[in-house]
Amino acid sequence: MDRDWVLHALETISGYTRGDTGITRLALSEEELQARSYVISVMEKMGMKIRVDGIGNIIGRLSGTDPAAAPVIVGSHLDSVPEGGRYDGVLGIVAGLAAIRRIQSEGTTRHPLELIVFTAEESSRFGFATMGSKAMAGVADIRAWSKAKDSQGTGFMEALATAGFQPDQIEAASRVGEPIHSFIEIHIEQGPVLEDAGLAIGVVEAIAAPTRLKIKVEGTPGHSGTTPMDSREDALVTAAQIVMAVREVALERYGEGTVGTVGNIKVYPGVMNVIPGLAELWVDIRGVNHDSVIETMQELKDEISIIAESEGTTVSIEVLTSDKPVRLHPKVADAVENACKDLKIPFRRMNSGAGHDAMHMASLCPTGMIFIPCARGISHNPEEYASPDDIMTGVDVLTRTMRELAE
Amino acid sequence: MDRDWVLHALETISGYTRGDTGITRLALSEEELQARSYVISVMEKMGMKIRVDGIGNIIGRLSGTDPAAAPVIVGSHLDSVPEGGRYDGVLGIVAGLAAIRRIQSEGTTRHPLELIVFTAEESSRFGFATMGSKAMAGVADIRAWSKAKDSQGTGFMEALATAGFQPDQIEAASRVGEPIHSFIEIHIEQGPVLEDAGLAIGVVEAIAAPTRLKIKVEGTPGHSGTTPMDSREDALVTAAQIVMAVREVALERYGEGTVGTVGNIKVYPGVMNVIPGLAELWVDIRGVNHDSVIETMQELKDEISIIAESEGTTVSIEVLTSDKPVRLHPKVADAVENACKDLKIPFRRMNSGAGHDAMHMASLCPTGMIFIPCARGISHNPEEYASPDDIMTGVDVLTRTMRELAE
Repeated sequence: MDRDWVLHALETISGYTRGDTGITRLALSEEELQARSYVISVMEKMGMKIRVDGIGNIIGRLSGTDPAAAPVIVGSHLDSVPEGGRYDGVLGIVAGLAAIRRIQSEGTTRHPLELIVFTAEESSRFGFATMGSKAMAGVADIRAWSKAKDSQGTGFMEALATAGFQPDQIEAASRVGEPIHSFIEIHIEQGPVLEDAGLAIGVVEAIAAPTRLKIKVEGTPGHSGTTPMDSREDALVTAAQIVMAVREVALERYGEGTVGTVGNIKVYPGVMNVIPGLAELWVDIRGVNHDSVIETMQELKDEISIIAESEGTTVSIEVLTSDKPVRLHPKVADAVENACKDLKIPFRRMNSGAGHDAMHMASLCPTGMIFIPCARGISHNPEEYASPDDIMTGVDVLTRTMRELAE
Repeated sequence: MDRDWVLHALETISGYTRGDTGITRLALSEEELQARSYVISVMEKMGMKIRVDGIGNIIGRLSGTDPAAAPVIVGSHLDSVPEGGRYDGVLGIVAGLAAIRRIQSEGTTRHPLELIVFTAEESSRFGFATMGSKAMAGVADIRAWSKAKDSQGTGFMEALATAGFQPDQIEAASRVGEPIHSFIEIHIEQGPVLEDAGLAIGVVEAIAAPTRLKIKVEGTPGHSGTTPMDSREDALVTAAQIVMAVREVALERYGEGTVGTVGNIKVYPGVMNVIPGLAELWVDIRGVNHDSVIETMQELKDEISIIAESEGTTVSIEVLTSDKPVRLHPKVADAVENACKDLKIPFRRMNSGAGHDAMHMASLCPTGMIFIPCARGISHNPEEYASPDDIMTGVDVLTRTMRELAE
């Protein structure tokens, strides 16, 4: 029954999309607003009290038996990247609803239960990620967000107002100082670790933070036919060695969970008959251990100096962002682990390489995350897939965890 | 006197440009037509008989004493790449005019002398290079050229007609079967060899031909934060190794004059938080020894197989063009060498890595090229520079060579 209910809800929400390829349900788009209405209608049927804050976060609440007790919150998001998948975010909302339904069917908890649909978790539309949870954590960047526009030129504040929310009340969405018992988010892993290990549940201990670099290599452009091989200062040849160096330094730090990726490269002038005079690389290094990330960065810088020296090119490194990883709370992780043990579900402790709304909620209250496997680690892609069995195992673990926390 | 005349002519032509950065005088543009008018006016003052063929090649002719003798031709082009330099092409026209002026001042040669301004040597505007000399060599590709358009949507045929030329007479521009004594082109080297060796003249023996490849690497996209370093099939990591392999195989063939360059690379989706799933590389391999180019290609293919195998990626190679190198004629090279020896000018025999109109004229008659040094090998760039001394040495050698050929 319960399984049908969950799969039906996932199916219904996946109908709110634009285009034929995967799921396109951008933040505050018509499709996302329809998905929100559906979730609100479900919460209303469940008798939850609903309010929407200035930035559009939907907060559904069921009272507990103790009027003085702080809420146990579950939450995630409904917005997607363009041509994304069915599970990223949505799983957390549907599993949260299913868990609350089950708990409700067994009686009332001492603590109130809340389900939150956060606004604009994905940065795809307005260039900023986890906007709703940032606002709730009191770290809204009103100045920057006021200038944020989508690719059609629609401003974030304008889109909020059009959707019926209150851009002038974003700062009032902050829950800093308010007692909150705990926050938990269930999400697909978006990586291959659980599937490869044959495990159903990941108990998340920390969320990695990215350090992002823009690396610029200046060489000397020259005619590809007339410049002898030993007289070249080819910016792309230097850049290629930097790509390899990023992999090498990250592989050396593998045990510390630090990863490094060159996500984009551009060369100029970028024509067949000219040796590239300029190359730009965009690098993402992240880990849950900030010291490891810093040391990886330092090693990379040292490697790059050696490469540039040997190639006769000039390399400059600009640090675009360097965020600190977020440790989640042992109390919530232990509750998830206990639920797995009680239910005899194989699990492992692990870290999240991707950012989530839980990252910001962690500054407000003890916070945890539950991961379930997804096929081949693929996410942000039409092929994103989580099996009904894994989803229901996630709902089981989430329900038991929330019940324990809310007792 | 003569030096002032040459520098003044170069200066005048460099005034026919658009924009502030370097020289922009695209084929058949208003600026190029102005430069053509200037050159025609100079030729008229010199008493040359001028005709313009269907594709707009300007052919100026001075009769010789023997009505049955075939012409000795000098030629190059006036069009430039966008934001190019002052010397590429123009040097050949001005030095040719100066050489004919000197020879004329000393009397009349037995063979007629011709100076040709070829249309559209650069591919920048219409996507096809050396169009004028191809037409003269009888290898015009009317079908493809009829479809060629510039970035503004103006067709090549339309541009020819607007300029007053006769697109329906392109095939009649062919001089196949007509007796031509010899063709010579003087050009800046566009490479660093002469400058590095401290030599004033390069006697060109062959023109390299490019083999051009598009290499496609398919990996698996994945989240840059959540995919462990040892579970990746990163298309850019494979592409980086291909960039290094192109350099390695070309360095091994260095003695054979074969060079290899990756001029452009693109990765998809090309965002900071996704491991590249697809990479494309554009490769240019060229040499004067066709066997060496073929062997380089084969070694590169072998290397790429090993890299792809080890990275778990799929690589496909598309050969876009594979032209044969052109050997120039020893008779003309010997004449240039004799001129250098007579004038006690240090020279070397060398090859041209870049293509030139001489490549096509070589199919009509004994053909040669003279290179002069250019600063740091830079060309197709506002910084392109040839010193007045080197230019005048080039004029001296060209004059003596043409006189010997035309006697």
